[in-house]
Amino acid sequence: MAAALTPALITLTSDFGSADHYVGTMKGVILSRCPHAHIVDISHEIAPFSILQAAYTISQAVPFFPPATVHVVVVDPGVGTARKPILARAQGQFFVAPDNGVLSLVLGVQPEIWEVTNVTFRLPNASQTFHGRDVFAPAAATLANGLPPEDAGPKVHDPVLLPDLKPIETHAGWQGKVLNVDRFGNIVTNFPVGTATQSRFKLESAGATVSDFRRTFGDAPPGLCFAYFGSSGYVEIGMNRQSAAAHLGIRPGDTVTLRVTIDATPDSRAANSNDRH
Amino acid sequence: MAAALTPALITLTSDFGSADHYVGTMKGVILSRCPHAHIVDISHEIAPFSILQAAYTISQAVPFFPPATVHVVVVDPGVGTARKPILARAQGQFFVAPDNGVLSLVLGVQPEIWEVTNVTFRLPNASQTFHGRDVFAPAAATLANGLPPEDAGPKVHDPVLLPDLKPIETHAGWQGKVLNVDRFGNIVTNFPVGTATQSRFKLESAGATVSDFRRTFGDAPPGLCFAYFGSSGYVEIGMNRQSAAAHLGIRPGDTVTLRVTIDATPDSRAANSNDRH
Amino acid sequence: MAAALTPALITLTSDFGSADHYVGTMKGVILSRCPHAHIVDISHEIAPFSILQAAYTISQAVPFFPPATVHVVVVDPGVGTARKPILARAQGQFFVAPDNGVLSLVLGVQPEIWEVTNVTFRLPNASQTFHGRDVFAPAAATLANGLPPEDAGPKVHDPVLLPDLKPIETHAGWQGKVLNVDRFGNIVTNFPVGTATQSRFKLESAGATVSDFRRTFGDAPPGLCFAYFGSSGYVEIGMNRQSAAAHLGIRPGDTVTLRVTIDATPDSRAANSNDRH
Repeated sequence: MAAALTPALITLTSDFGSADHYVGTMKGVILSRCPHAHIVDISHEIAPFSILQAAYTISQAVPFFPPATVHVVVVDPGVGTARKPILARAQGQFFVAPDNGVLSLVLGVQPEIWEVTNVTFRLPNASQTFHGRDVFAPAAATLANGLPPEDAGPKVHDPVLLPDLKPIETHAGWQGKVLNVDRFGNIVTNFPVGTATQSRFKLESAGATVSDFRRTFGDAPPGLCFAYFGSSGYVEIGMNRQSAAAHLGIRPGDTVTLRVTIDATPDSRAANSNDRH
Repeated sequence: MAAALTPALITLTSDFGSADHYVGTMKGVILSRCPHAHIVDISHEIAPFSILQAAYTISQAVPFFPPATVHVVVVDPGVGTARKPILARAQGQFFVAPDNGVLSLVLGVQPEIWEVTNVTFRLPNASQTFHGRDVFAPAAATLANGLPPEDAGPKVHDPVLLPDLKPIETHAGWQGKVLNVDRFGNIVTNFPVGTATQSRFKLESAGATVSDFRRTFGDAPPGLCFAYFGSSGYVEIGMNRQSAAAHLGIRPGDTVTLRVTIDATPDSRAANSNDRH
Repeated sequence: MAAALTPALITLTSDFGSADHYVGTMKGVILSRCPHAHIVDISHEIAPFSILQAAYTISQAVPFFPPATVHVVVVDPGVGTARKPILARAQGQFFVAPDNGVLSLVLGVQPEIWEVTNVTFRLPNASQTFHGRDVFAPAAATLANGLPPEDAGPKVHDPVLLPDLKPIETHAGWQGKVLNVDRFGNIVTNFPVGTATQSRFKLESAGATVSDFRRTFGDAPPGLCFAYFGSSGYVEIGMNRQSAAAHLGIRPGDTVTLRVTIDATPDSRAANSNDRH
């Protein structure tokens, strides 16, 4: 496990935006402690306080990073309160974040988690309002320098997890939710690819029904909302050069209900695909 | 040509925005394949699907990068369709992009172009909707690792090029177009510096006429639209601490017509410089 | 001072935004001259021409960077005019910027400042409108390559400084100003932490009065504007998951007046804390 003890690649995800000094200052802290760190931004445009969006975003990036990468995720409405700063090892990678659910989609089945209490992992005289700089950045740099995560503090056995991240089977079909809406207005559901067949399904959300399937955007005529197997690993809803989210009235971060019905009988309610009821 | 075979500097240009995980994930793919890559973002805020804006943007950055830099440009409305992913060598640098015109302003006179078909240059099981991650990022990393571009796939002899990028001489003067509008509202035309003299010219666009010339912004009084020799190498139109594009009604990505008239006779239509007709 | 002569860490702060090629092109210039440079973005979303916001932003990041970091700050409405490009050594770090006040909060008491006139520190044939690329980036790379700042040009003894950065005592209390409004709508004043006690004070701005104090956001009920000791080292005004700036009508970059009154007597005008008058 020597490689895992000397990570140098650190990613950052936050809701800090790009106008303020916050992200740059975190990088200064990291590079002061660990000059050989290679820092990669995942996103700093998470909607303020959106734990779900952060959880989805980091989960999409993680599988494409090398083993022992340190991922820092700071969406932290409870900064300065009793919520714990934590450090986790899961999927062969490391995570540093507040214990508020932002790691829900990456912890997997047997994560090891520690609370960051050791002052070695923090700046002295931490502020009450900027733990990205004073706690999470130095913790990541300390890990990247090779200190074992076990040194950070006591084990955490009951991390906070977001509820209802997986679809639930009901008598009417599966209840799911929108995990994300991207820049193009594509809607990412939490139905794994393969849930909907390519021929017979209905996705219902915000009063609209989608029952068309396409392989990719360029295969669809203008104005058609369709489902496709997304690069996310989930069923997504999109349009060709148009925003499905705007068309259907679904917004980034919204929690909505999606139903999948796999049946071969006609359903008069869905006669006009994509019509809003 | 040994240096050209071991590039390690990679730039990224896309319309992916900065809120989603897309760019960060591409960097994970690159660094997983080529840990010594140095990645530089040019822009990820290209207007969605704007091939012209991407073509202009990368063309401005390229001359200032070292030889053998690998430039990845992903504005790709045709992702997953029959459009080819290509790899090009031009101006002593490398390019990886969809074959849709985004490289129109960098290929120069004798580019060498290959289609990326070799699976070594791609991720296995590529998605249909995110070739930035599954095709273009791994192709760039493979190049950066020293594999010769010739290994990518068959030669391409007829790359897609954007039409009308150069001004056309007409009986009324030269017909050009706006290549870009920047953050400050400065308008970049496609008239090379020197086309307009500093004393006698008229630029007409969107019903407005500009016939003043200044050396730089601070030389102009408030409210005046003026032409200047831009850092882009093109004639640009700007205002002092104000948006010329907003003032004249020209928007980023718009294709408009500009006329240059070099003559010494008074023209009553242009009596009121900057007035909208 | 050997370490100070071979800096390799360079930060960039500008109002160039992230859509255009400007920042990427500056990085190309730097890496062409100094391939081992490690470049960190502080912010490129400074409001166009906002020298105060740039001055505040870089001042917040600097203390967290290693010695001999080179900080480039380009908010430069006077580009191409007689304003000087300067290079400074202060606080053990280096700065490259136009001489227009953007370094007001980092120069400290005994800065050493030079005008950049030596052509070795610039690109040949500098444009009149993009000194970020043609002057400031090459100057930073030249410093990072180990050339002594003394070689840049003649000493500057009277740098331009922003006025009124420190609170002024008046008969009604202290007159200060808003240095910044961040993404979350938190308002940063120029009153150093400790100026307001935690129990008896009044901050007045834009017709509103704030007289509550909290330790951090999560300690405040919804809807309450409160003062807190900010991570900035200044007294800040915020709300819990809401924008204090929007609530109080204060905008990024605005110069407003704040009064602090430390007294124990009731003040009828402030009976309803947070009410707009």
